[in-house]
Amino acid sequence: MPTRRELANAIRALSMDAVQKANSGHPGAPMGMADIAEVLWNDYMQHNPANPSWPDRDRFVMSNGHGSMLVYSLLHLSGYDLPMDEIKQFRQLHSKTPGHPEYGYTAGVETTTGPLGQGISNAVGMALAEKMMAAHFNQPGHDIVDHNTYAFLGDGCMMEGISHETCALAGTLGLGKLVAFWDDNGISIDGEVEGWFTDDTPARFEAYGWHVVRGVDGHDANAVKAAIEEARQNSDKPSLICCKTVIGFGSPNKCGKEECHGAALGDDEVALTRKELGWEHGPFEIPGDIYEGWSAKDKGAKAETEWKERFAAYKAAHPELAAEFERRIAGHLPADWSEKANAYIKQTIEKAEKVASRKASQNAIAGMAPAVPELLGGSADLAGSNLTMYGGSKGVTRDDAAGNYVFYGVREFGMAAIMNGIALHGGFIPYGGTFLIFSDYARNGIRMSALMKQRVMYVLTHDSIGLGEDGPTHQPIEQTPSLRLIPNLNVWRPCDAVETAVAWKAGIERTDGPSAFILSRQGLPHMERDGEQLANIARGGYVLKDCDGTPDLIFIATGSEIELAVQAADVLSGEGKKVRVVSMPCVELFDQQDPAYREAVLPKAVRARVAIEAGATTTWHKFTGLDGAVFGLDRFGESAPGGALLDYFGFKPENVAQVARDVMNG
Amino acid sequence: MPTRRELANAIRALSMDAVQKANSGHPGAPMGMADIAEVLWNDYMQHNPANPSWPDRDRFVMSNGHGSMLVYSLLHLSGYDLPMDEIKQFRQLHSKTPGHPEYGYTAGVETTTGPLGQGISNAVGMALAEKMMAAHFNQPGHDIVDHNTYAFLGDGCMMEGISHETCALAGTLGLGKLVAFWDDNGISIDGEVEGWFTDDTPARFEAYGWHVVRGVDGHDANAVKAAIEEARQNSDKPSLICCKTVIGFGSPNKCGKEECHGAALGDDEVALTRKELGWEHGPFEIPGDIYEGWSAKDKGAKAETEWKERFAAYKAAHPELAAEFERRIAGHLPADWSEKANAYIKQTIEKAEKVASRKASQNAIAGMAPAVPELLGGSADLAGSNLTMYGGSKGVTRDDAAGNYVFYGVREFGMAAIMNGIALHGGFIPYGGTFLIFSDYARNGIRMSALMKQRVMYVLTHDSIGLGEDGPTHQPIEQTPSLRLIPNLNVWRPCDAVETAVAWKAGIERTDGPSAFILSRQGLPHMERDGEQLANIARGGYVLKDCDGTPDLIFIATGSEIELAVQAADVLSGEGKKVRVVSMPCVELFDQQDPAYREAVLPKAVRARVAIEAGATTTWHKFTGLDGAVFGLDRFGESAPGGALLDYFGFKPENVAQVARDVMNG
Repeated sequence: MPTRRELANAIRALSMDAVQKANSGHPGAPMGMADIAEVLWNDYMQHNPANPSWPDRDRFVMSNGHGSMLVYSLLHLSGYDLPMDEIKQFRQLHSKTPGHPEYGYTAGVETTTGPLGQGISNAVGMALAEKMMAAHFNQPGHDIVDHNTYAFLGDGCMMEGISHETCALAGTLGLGKLVAFWDDNGISIDGEVEGWFTDDTPARFEAYGWHVVRGVDGHDANAVKAAIEEARQNSDKPSLICCKTVIGFGSPNKCGKEECHGAALGDDEVALTRKELGWEHGPFEIPGDIYEGWSAKDKGAKAETEWKERFAAYKAAHPELAAEFERRIAGHLPADWSEKANAYIKQTIEKAEKVASRKASQNAIAGMAPAVPELLGGSADLAGSNLTMYGGSKGVTRDDAAGNYVFYGVREFGMAAIMNGIALHGGFIPYGGTFLIFSDYARNGIRMSALMKQRVMYVLTHDSIGLGEDGPTHQPIEQTPSLRLIPNLNVWRPCDAVETAVAWKAGIERTDGPSAFILSRQGLPHMERDGEQLANIARGGYVLKDCDGTPDLIFIATGSEIELAVQAADVLSGEGKKVRVVSMPCVELFDQQDPAYREAVLPKAVRARVAIEAGATTTWHKFTGLDGAVFGLDRFGESAPGGALLDYFGFKPENVAQVARDVMNG
Repeated sequence: MPTRRELANAIRALSMDAVQKANSGHPGAPMGMADIAEVLWNDYMQHNPANPSWPDRDRFVMSNGHGSMLVYSLLHLSGYDLPMDEIKQFRQLHSKTPGHPEYGYTAGVETTTGPLGQGISNAVGMALAEKMMAAHFNQPGHDIVDHNTYAFLGDGCMMEGISHETCALAGTLGLGKLVAFWDDNGISIDGEVEGWFTDDTPARFEAYGWHVVRGVDGHDANAVKAAIEEARQNSDKPSLICCKTVIGFGSPNKCGKEECHGAALGDDEVALTRKELGWEHGPFEIPGDIYEGWSAKDKGAKAETEWKERFAAYKAAHPELAAEFERRIAGHLPADWSEKANAYIKQTIEKAEKVASRKASQNAIAGMAPAVPELLGGSADLAGSNLTMYGGSKGVTRDDAAGNYVFYGVREFGMAAIMNGIALHGGFIPYGGTFLIFSDYARNGIRMSALMKQRVMYVLTHDSIGLGEDGPTHQPIEQTPSLRLIPNLNVWRPCDAVETAVAWKAGIERTDGPSAFILSRQGLPHMERDGEQLANIARGGYVLKDCDGTPDLIFIATGSEIELAVQAADVLSGEGKKVRVVSMPCVELFDQQDPAYREAVLPKAVRARVAIEAGATTTWHKFTGLDGAVFGLDRFGESAPGGALLDYFGFKPENVAQVARDVMNG
């Protein structure tokens, strides 16, 4: 029977060998945290390697994602579908062992980590999702949702601001099943952290309302075990276990130093480390008894089977709830969703209201949310401005997690990362709001939604200088084009309530990535459409107003500038010009249409094209080319009433018409 | 003689009246913090309204910038050039009283605030700059740099992650002359904060190493005064004064509620508030004795005169230091700067090295920094990777602030905001490094550098999939184009060591905004240039390789893709095609050139154009139009060695040549 240390050394050996073979990677963290991981995984983690999607499994997140070899070692050793050949392919193209843990690449990896501070924040989201699912679904005698979320994090995560945002909220919401392990090794890339990181971290987390276990020797399995026991006994607060560790533990010459953080140890040092650890096996060799000591296959199968029995009992007692649970965990929308959503859109068309798109968005939420109970709202403060709450919104609180709305506080980045964790956990479709300008704060979290293909929706209001008096700090210029640059993010900027409703429907139905809704503060008039036009909204771009025959000019616009395009088109029509207006609420979707459709909307032969958007112009040149023009704003705004600003910056039909005349005249 | 409360009520009256007249704005914070501001400004602030740029003035920052009327009231009442007519024009176009305090619009406004958490972070930068300037310039018996930085901040700033990053660092660096006042009013836009903000904030700041004065009644002038005295006696730690206040103090029906946070009180409530406060004067009427009680003109003139006398004594004793101080505060470069910088560029040309541009950047720092002692380096960790340190770098520490390099820790956003504060303070030209991908974290701070026109430089390395194994979380795709979208930011992506050196020179010389240097991890070959080409680098785009006569095709590329463009051009030249290669290291500068120059580089008649950049393609369509092509990458990367990835994603001469042939064939 191997000792705990021998089991832990398997992680160390695999990590240093894989990094050495790739000649790239981070051996320090896996070697430093191996003993902690061994205790957690062998004594506490409830999971089934044969089924990484068992809904009630414990979640494990390595927030210091550069230590990916720790995760791969754990998955390999405990019996997941990650054979040694994949370990040997660490950091090679199309392996299951990329440089950082990537969600969707490797069975058992719960989230993509590497951008520091976001993993622990995803873990907060997962723990919150668990608490909310339990509140929604558990019944007396039937705790079908009852699992822990464990997170490892390093000094880097601790320094990042997002750790403040999300750990503070975790304290407020009393996420008692969240247990975080701080790898207190005193080293970051610039060396010993004492020159730039002197926080009393335990006191800081106590100030957030966490239960803190201080001063644990991260290389003493008994101490780690006692700390986990203590953490698990505190169910009303999240726990932080502060583990003193030695980075690169086992490497005689590099342990405790930055040298082993982010580079291979070197063949000689690997050999010396083997000796120091008493690990006598060759590279990528794991003896059978070590595998036996690690295997979670039997335990895991048993645990899941027991859960299935409990779930069967639940199902017998609460058949409707059980069916709903299964549907939500599977990520399927209700059977009548499409019908109800279409009915809401129809009703919106009939209303034909002039309304700000932020308000149209609130109406869409109110109209659609009852048909998707998994829709989970929220906002980084500002709910009264971005209109993310509706009559049916109920706040999630520490004592009652059965709500459908999270008050994220003034924490935009944290909100994004928490929503990613909620979406990854399953059971909810989260949306969260802030002012468009503050999407800047959340930007890398939005990127992570896109990279992980998560169904997360961002409600981003006050979308241009049209917001008025708050001035340049609050007026988006580059934000909409900048969001469009993020791969796999669908950015919608609807021109009226109908497009807004269609955007919401598309966002809720999308299963392979996030959507952002860019919404106005000011009122937008209703546009008339026939059935074909209505259907084409979902194609991202379509002909909203047309002329007879080949157009002399095409306007392309979005959002609040559609009205302007239509007005300018009227001016030019009055001058005998044939003008088409293309509404392009979602450039990404338009780009995905077949060439024939795109040609029908924007015929190659028509080169006189003017795009209009109250923001940076860059998006549009690919449609307007060298012969067209973009009417936008490539400078910061000013503080004044919105109407005065739109005038000042020239957003008037006559100006647009003049640009169009110039374009037509070449 | 008016009472303190009467003096404070002048702020309340001006704030509610200005917001009422504009029917837009935030009366709650100014009315809540008026008593604190009155004590601070009348009893402590060292400033001279007649000279807002007196170098040794105390700095005042309102981090909760939506309370801008507090700042405007203070400036108006104490005697700055902000007449009542401007107060009446609150939030109107081109007034000196925009919705949020805007640097450069209003004499006495030290920084632009509104994006929460950044003001307090700017204040950290200012206090750090003060400490560093003192360390560099003060001499025994001559404390010519000796001023305080005061910051107001609200619950929103406290929730934002950036407040963690920068306040933690302020503690580590022992910025004892920073005094922050927390407006603990328990209200944010979503209502009473207890549902989403339950931090023990005093304990949190103690954990950062701050001196905390707890439980101060923010409406009791004596209590506020005692707290400030206590804070000033603690010179080794920054101080946080926790002020319990009532938002909208004085408004009988709206005080203490969210209602008064961000909207006019309404005429009736304004009238009731007047009564409640005993303020019997009309709108925008300030009695003479109130003005007298507030005026800082005489005190300020006296204080500056005394400082000037002390400075004269310093100058007599240390003439060279005094001249250097004056030069640096004025923001002028040394007289021999240009000569030395050009000598370094010449030397770089002669070396003709193949080198990664991150390394070329380090060489440029080493080559140029000795000629600009005000250059202040730093990095958000990663110094060994982004090569922001050179042999002459000396860390700034708590006990020795006379260095030229700040270890910001893993705090990208905080670094940006601190650098903004340092630049605003004056005396330094800051640069800071991180991986390009993590510019996402700092994005709104970079935007604020641009909005405030500050000379700040961002060193952003590992600039494409070419970085290799770290994978999609670390590989920039959209970051370079996305930075180009920020108005007034010059984004340089140099193709070799020469362009890198020119970029650094341009960044250091630029006085109206920030620059970003986008740098490779992998080696880039030296390009040959004649004198004219060398001179044209500074124009942002130029012909690097040309053909005889009108080109059949133009390649446009940047950074690591220049080599690829040149290789593809060689392939096509071998096929008899006339090919031009345009290097465009800085699109913003190229766009600012006169039309004749731009036409000479990119003749309108040549429509066969292919742009190449290993990232999102959007930037380039405005140059390639509908007839050209952009060779880039509009999807996330993968984890593999850099060379393998560039191959996998097709960055090979033959592929580029084929795209070019297709373009030429229409």
